[in-house]
Amino acid sequence: MRHILIIGAGRSASSLIKYLLNKSEAENLHLTIADLSLELAQRKAGTHPRATAIAFDIFNAEQRHTQISKADIVISMLPAHLHYEVAKDCITHKKHLVTASYISPAMQELDEQVKANNLVFMNEIGLDPGIDHMSAMKVLDEIRDKGGKVILFESFCGGLVAPESDNNLWNYKFTWNPRNVVLAGQGGTAKFIQEGTYKYIPYNKLFRRTEFMDVEGYGRFEGYANRDSLKYRSVYGLDDVKTLYRGTLRRVGFSKAWNMFVQLGMTDDSYIMENSETMSYRDFVNAFLPYHPTDSVELKLRHSLKLDQDDIQWDKLVELDIFNPNKIVGLINATPAQILEKILSDKWTLSPEDKDMIVMYHKFGYELNGERKQIDATMVCIGEDQTYTAMAKTVGLPVAMATLQILNGNITTPGVQLPLNKEVYLPILKELEEFGVVFHEKQVHYTGYNANNVVS
Amino acid sequence: MRHILIIGAGRSASSLIKYLLNKSEAENLHLTIADLSLELAQRKAGTHPRATAIAFDIFNAEQRHTQISKADIVISMLPAHLHYEVAKDCITHKKHLVTASYISPAMQELDEQVKANNLVFMNEIGLDPGIDHMSAMKVLDEIRDKGGKVILFESFCGGLVAPESDNNLWNYKFTWNPRNVVLAGQGGTAKFIQEGTYKYIPYNKLFRRTEFMDVEGYGRFEGYANRDSLKYRSVYGLDDVKTLYRGTLRRVGFSKAWNMFVQLGMTDDSYIMENSETMSYRDFVNAFLPYHPTDSVELKLRHSLKLDQDDIQWDKLVELDIFNPNKIVGLINATPAQILEKILSDKWTLSPEDKDMIVMYHKFGYELNGERKQIDATMVCIGEDQTYTAMAKTVGLPVAMATLQILNGNITTPGVQLPLNKEVYLPILKELEEFGVVFHEKQVHYTGYNANNVVS
Repeated sequence: MRHILIIGAGRSASSLIKYLLNKSEAENLHLTIADLSLELAQRKAGTHPRATAIAFDIFNAEQRHTQISKADIVISMLPAHLHYEVAKDCITHKKHLVTASYISPAMQELDEQVKANNLVFMNEIGLDPGIDHMSAMKVLDEIRDKGGKVILFESFCGGLVAPESDNNLWNYKFTWNPRNVVLAGQGGTAKFIQEGTYKYIPYNKLFRRTEFMDVEGYGRFEGYANRDSLKYRSVYGLDDVKTLYRGTLRRVGFSKAWNMFVQLGMTDDSYIMENSETMSYRDFVNAFLPYHPTDSVELKLRHSLKLDQDDIQWDKLVELDIFNPNKIVGLINATPAQILEKILSDKWTLSPEDKDMIVMYHKFGYELNGERKQIDATMVCIGEDQTYTAMAKTVGLPVAMATLQILNGNITTPGVQLPLNKEVYLPILKELEEFGVVFHEKQVHYTGYNANNVVS
Repeated sequence: MRHILIIGAGRSASSLIKYLLNKSEAENLHLTIADLSLELAQRKAGTHPRATAIAFDIFNAEQRHTQISKADIVISMLPAHLHYEVAKDCITHKKHLVTASYISPAMQELDEQVKANNLVFMNEIGLDPGIDHMSAMKVLDEIRDKGGKVILFESFCGGLVAPESDNNLWNYKFTWNPRNVVLAGQGGTAKFIQEGTYKYIPYNKLFRRTEFMDVEGYGRFEGYANRDSLKYRSVYGLDDVKTLYRGTLRRVGFSKAWNMFVQLGMTDDSYIMENSETMSYRDFVNAFLPYHPTDSVELKLRHSLKLDQDDIQWDKLVELDIFNPNKIVGLINATPAQILEKILSDKWTLSPEDKDMIVMYHKFGYELNGERKQIDATMVCIGEDQTYTAMAKTVGLPVAMATLQILNGNITTPGVQLPLNKEVYLPILKELEEFGVVFHEKQVHYTGYNANNVVS
């Protein structure tokens, strides 16, 4: 019997646990599902004979040591900043570790110790980061293996609402952490490279510098730039690439409408608004507009944002009921971002029958035998229901698969790892296809931003 | 003989030192002028028999103790964060202290010790803060003394170029710290109260929500909101005021043009640009615009900012030579804000014959005997030359006057002080008039934002 300790039984653990339980007989596994909430752990364990649910406090060192020492491998689905304690104990007890989170500097510092103990600490093996790394590296390696030189890499990912549940003017609902959606793009200027030139987009222009992409069968999407487009330049082997751009996908029109909130100042999370508890939604809007004794909040907003009478942006605001003087915010000492999140949650929360959708879009431009070529790779995954969402599947399944591959000795390279090597991404991408996570690759005309190599 | 130790002999110390030297015979004063640069201190001391210049290192504790112990009163014209060391030594040696800086939390914590030693630590007695406090409190006290209730207070101040030296399209030159001008409005949303309603302006709208003010003989100005409009609400006794607004003055059109830099992202100081040393001014502009193989930087900028062919904003940019491909930035690891400052300094640096101008504008709205009334108070001060600038006069003279008043026992209230009491502001405002710093008060119709008391 091989023992897997899963710490954290939240939303993203559903598909992960289901996968491992389905394999538990054949692979001779036992899962210990540990969560601060025993009830949540029990719900995920169900009555499966090979699962044990326990109440687990990450800050209880004794319990941590006991549970980790009993396991053969540990999966941490905790928030990223909590992995470190688990990681240190994994070294002490010589256990492998798998997480879906970005490698923190503290985690990276453990690399030597992890290697010295011949352990695998596999990180960033969820969706984004995770499937993005693997699916990108697969095509990049293929291009390079056949002698091509990569000159462009663009990568976009979005958590959206499935077409059958897409029934509001924003073509958007919260399928993951709403707070991250409200704060998206803050905390630093977006930086990327286009045709060898560094480009910068400030927050106030971020949602107006989008580009469109079509996905066969799913229509058109738009992408806005991430802050960190250059983060993986070196580890992907793209130091000489001319265009490197990473972004977030939305349905067309979302960004232009979202920009209204940015321009008004409603996404600011840096200060607390006076009287946030008792203000109405209308008061909230009015706080960002000049005082006038008789002009309506509506007209002041139209004027401030220069919205014509027939501008669809207007209807998007009305749909959110943002001018309602009777709906009260009811949040004590709240920031504008927190209040906006509340207002949006009224309308953008998934109904029980709603499904979510993950869309990923990569563009690979390269030169081969003197010719410029391009491969576009797209993946769309639709959730099954509110438990086995597309997000839970795409985050959890690669984690579960990597865990099993490590247990079975198929992934062996020791150290604090990303899923960039063939030994990791090939079997996992292949297995993901069985679960409907399929990349469609298409050879297309090279687009780039200077397809004809014009000199400016 | 009374000994005055002046620490810091920079630009703002010129008028201060001149004033005290002129009084030194009659008042029996000796000045020790201390600066890190002996040459700078010597230049300010000249050959005056009652002045001694010394090289002085604020971080040399022994020298600090020696010099402070010999003085009767200390003036610190150092940057604000360096006052604290001086202040502690002043308590040890029981010396009064005068500064033109905002009271830091550390300085405020010394209040009890300062009082226990019966010392006066007078702060915020320059221009802004300083003359703004004094001139505001004078009118506020007069209104309240005659039974009026203050319902509106707006206060604006700007450091500008004098009309005779105003010869560029921006109607602006750097008369003080250029870095502060480039970073103006960053670091927090502007917050104020209009007719009892809290209002917030995010940075990206700050320079588009200006209001106009006319000053007799000097034409029209515009004001944009400061971040800290509510900072002095309580100490001014304005807890019940309906409108409270503090702002910065510029010539009409400056803010709209400045907003171009804000929208493009050129005022950002939070990250370093790639290749900042070798990039041209044109490259700098291009970094904030999308890549295109053939469209010019000029057209991309016009498109991005929606500038028509005949928009005067365009000429303001051209005047700055910002599209020049041959002018190189030449700053290593520079932020956008640092590069913009460099570009602006080429054009906005005062010529030797240029004069600066300080403008202050207060509006006081109040109710008296059931009537709404308003007093507008304005002050304009023009510099004499590049040494005795309007800035040096308005910052330095109140410091010098307060120093003498404390020495002569006319200002006696102990503690860490602001110049809010009559014992301080009355004699100083009166004496400032002899130096051309004169407030013109005018009874006007109450304007406010709801002059007719309409219910919205």
